[in-house]
Amino acid sequence: MCMKTLIELGEEAKKASRYLALASTTEKNHTLKMMSLAILDNVDEILSANQKDLAAAKENNIPETLLDRLILNANRLQEMADGLIQIADLPDPIGVVDGMFKNEAGLTIGKQSVPLGVIGIIYESRPNVTTDAGALCFKSGNAVILRGGKEAIHSNTALVNILQETLNATGFPIACLQLIEDTSRETAREMMRLNRYLDVLIPRGGARLIQTVLETATVPVIETGTGNCHIYIDKDAQLKMATDIIVNAKCSRPSVCNAAETLVIHKDVAAEFLPFIEQALADYHVELRADEKAYQLLKKAIPATKEDWETEFLDFILAIKVVDSLEEAIDHINQYSTGHSEAIVTDNYFSGQRFHREIDSSTVYVNASTRFTDGFEFGFGAEIGISTQKLHARGPMGLAELTSSKYIVFGEGQIR
Amino acid sequence: MCMKTLIELGEEAKKASRYLALASTTEKNHTLKMMSLAILDNVDEILSANQKDLAAAKENNIPETLLDRLILNANRLQEMADGLIQIADLPDPIGVVDGMFKNEAGLTIGKQSVPLGVIGIIYESRPNVTTDAGALCFKSGNAVILRGGKEAIHSNTALVNILQETLNATGFPIACLQLIEDTSRETAREMMRLNRYLDVLIPRGGARLIQTVLETATVPVIETGTGNCHIYIDKDAQLKMATDIIVNAKCSRPSVCNAAETLVIHKDVAAEFLPFIEQALADYHVELRADEKAYQLLKKAIPATKEDWETEFLDFILAIKVVDSLEEAIDHINQYSTGHSEAIVTDNYFSGQRFHREIDSSTVYVNASTRFTDGFEFGFGAEIGISTQKLHARGPMGLAELTSSKYIVFGEGQIR
Repeated sequence: MCMKTLIELGEEAKKASRYLALASTTEKNHTLKMMSLAILDNVDEILSANQKDLAAAKENNIPETLLDRLILNANRLQEMADGLIQIADLPDPIGVVDGMFKNEAGLTIGKQSVPLGVIGIIYESRPNVTTDAGALCFKSGNAVILRGGKEAIHSNTALVNILQETLNATGFPIACLQLIEDTSRETAREMMRLNRYLDVLIPRGGARLIQTVLETATVPVIETGTGNCHIYIDKDAQLKMATDIIVNAKCSRPSVCNAAETLVIHKDVAAEFLPFIEQALADYHVELRADEKAYQLLKKAIPATKEDWETEFLDFILAIKVVDSLEEAIDHINQYSTGHSEAIVTDNYFSGQRFHREIDSSTVYVNASTRFTDGFEFGFGAEIGISTQKLHARGPMGLAELTSSKYIVFGEGQIR
Repeated sequence: MCMKTLIELGEEAKKASRYLALASTTEKNHTLKMMSLAILDNVDEILSANQKDLAAAKENNIPETLLDRLILNANRLQEMADGLIQIADLPDPIGVVDGMFKNEAGLTIGKQSVPLGVIGIIYESRPNVTTDAGALCFKSGNAVILRGGKEAIHSNTALVNILQETLNATGFPIACLQLIEDTSRETAREMMRLNRYLDVLIPRGGARLIQTVLETATVPVIETGTGNCHIYIDKDAQLKMATDIIVNAKCSRPSVCNAAETLVIHKDVAAEFLPFIEQALADYHVELRADEKAYQLLKKAIPATKEDWETEFLDFILAIKVVDSLEEAIDHINQYSTGHSEAIVTDNYFSGQRFHREIDSSTVYVNASTRFTDGFEFGFGAEIGISTQKLHARGPMGLAELTSSKYIVFGEGQIR
């Protein structure tokens, strides 16, 4: 089979996006439900493609954690299929008119949500992104060009073939959802500069992927997912709540972006709290990297370097810094944070208010774990990623964040 | 006097933006009103600086239209001062919490508007952009770095000095509003890549400036203002309304981005309408560039080339194309438009609906002139530009479009 060039993929996506932008909610939802059935009808085919990826991965000695992300099984396919149904059941974000009004000249003006057009998604080895991101783009009326990691190419190809067969069966152009089969770096670079066809590019993956995209892309990018998140324990914090939150934020799932990486603690409570927290974290074998003051208060820690303040460990490692004041805590966080999620633990009303106001991150918590920064937890029913930039969208992005708008104006011959 | 480097300007702007983000509405409005008074108190100083720019411009044989944009006089300064008061009187876009809700875990979550941070504005020779854009950024809590054209450097420096004196007097850091005094191209290029300090870059000016910024910038850009706007006269249009709208859209102010550049007309009415429209446009000496069919129906036209369909003339020139159907009109417009503003003139309900739905532009009109695409006409009370991109903002941008958001979350110890 001969692979399509990126230009061909782009041209077809653009055409498909025009069709898709006009599709009714009923047609889109029906197609998503048919896609869900098609996944379940083709479990064997998908799993046998996945076996090829897994065999190649083992041959290439890919690390265990990566391998886990790559594995598909009956359970995971059921989750994929369920995810498609959930997306079908969400309200259509397209066509919503917000605040229609009459202006002084008597024109009726409404701001209507419309699709962005063609969205590019660059991701790594998780095949579930193929169906999740593909379905979210489809529901929001956008054509999508997917570029997954080479480790998952067989799984992704099988999945996209099945989704495209469904598109074809329900009368949509198959170019609504396309996969770049050439997983070379050159093609990825070319994709990042495909301004003529791509309206936006969303990278989903680790810090290195995001950085490469930011440096290379000329297509507008929505930066997602790098989370150097902080928990600050104020002098007026409760010991148990503080411990529960730090243990949850660090240990419940350390590999995700909303996990905490640094604990900042007020000097007045450090001596009492740190030994207790150390003990709670010991159950999870968390390595502690402490500044000088914290180091004195801990049994087993290693000295922190400046690099530790900057690092998203994504592992059972926690940096700890003792501060003299709330102000120092805010300065430290604003300096080193990636602008994802930060939390304060405090009983003091004014400390909470100030933290909310002065911390410059997508999501700022008082007395809760940073682990809640998530489209599902926020009630969006779905998530395409968590934006850490300020333009267009910030924080968890659902279907609404995959839309643009246009003003529709109703006149009766008005001139100016 | 030694000029500050861009890095110094950037660092100071970043610091100032933190202060400004926390300023109260009262403090900001008071400062804007004081700025307005300061402009009026320093008319002589500003006009004498402007005289230097005008003298240099004449020496360099700058064209009359450019000269007109550069000129300041008592009237224009009064308008500038009035503009500052108007911006002071607008609602503060910062701190607005939209749709606060409780999630399943019992967290109270609100999406709050916050400033973008530091905004860069690159513009050409109009000194009024200095106060307008400066004040809009200030009101929306953003520090701003202005880079105006070299033709206006004396006027801009005088204006910024006066605004900074006011900032100082009302207790704000003067770095809330800074001017790049070095108007070299190298410095402009450097500004476009100042990602560490600039959160967004907004170019205001002609197509060439916008294109240079798009090609050079690594800072996120909001593309504004290129308007290759179309009026489509449907077969069910009224002759008088159609003529009024095309004359208004072409002739009321041809140098602006919402002026019409191409007339698309249905073949069924072309023979009746075009001679009438030609006569109406003759009063303004509009040059007509016609496709083959239109050429046959006009007394005095020149044949249109493909380039004419693509050109934003910004002059008394109109391209004319005859089409066989609404569908052909929509295809032509979507192919050549810059996505700014388009209008259909029709009595037919379904034609209007279809035009609204299928035209992919920031603002789509039924039976009104494209000249209404404007922040003031849309009731925003102010305008920073008209976005022709789909990300972040589309169409006229007011104060709300100069904001980002953050989620503020109120918990009581929740963990996940």
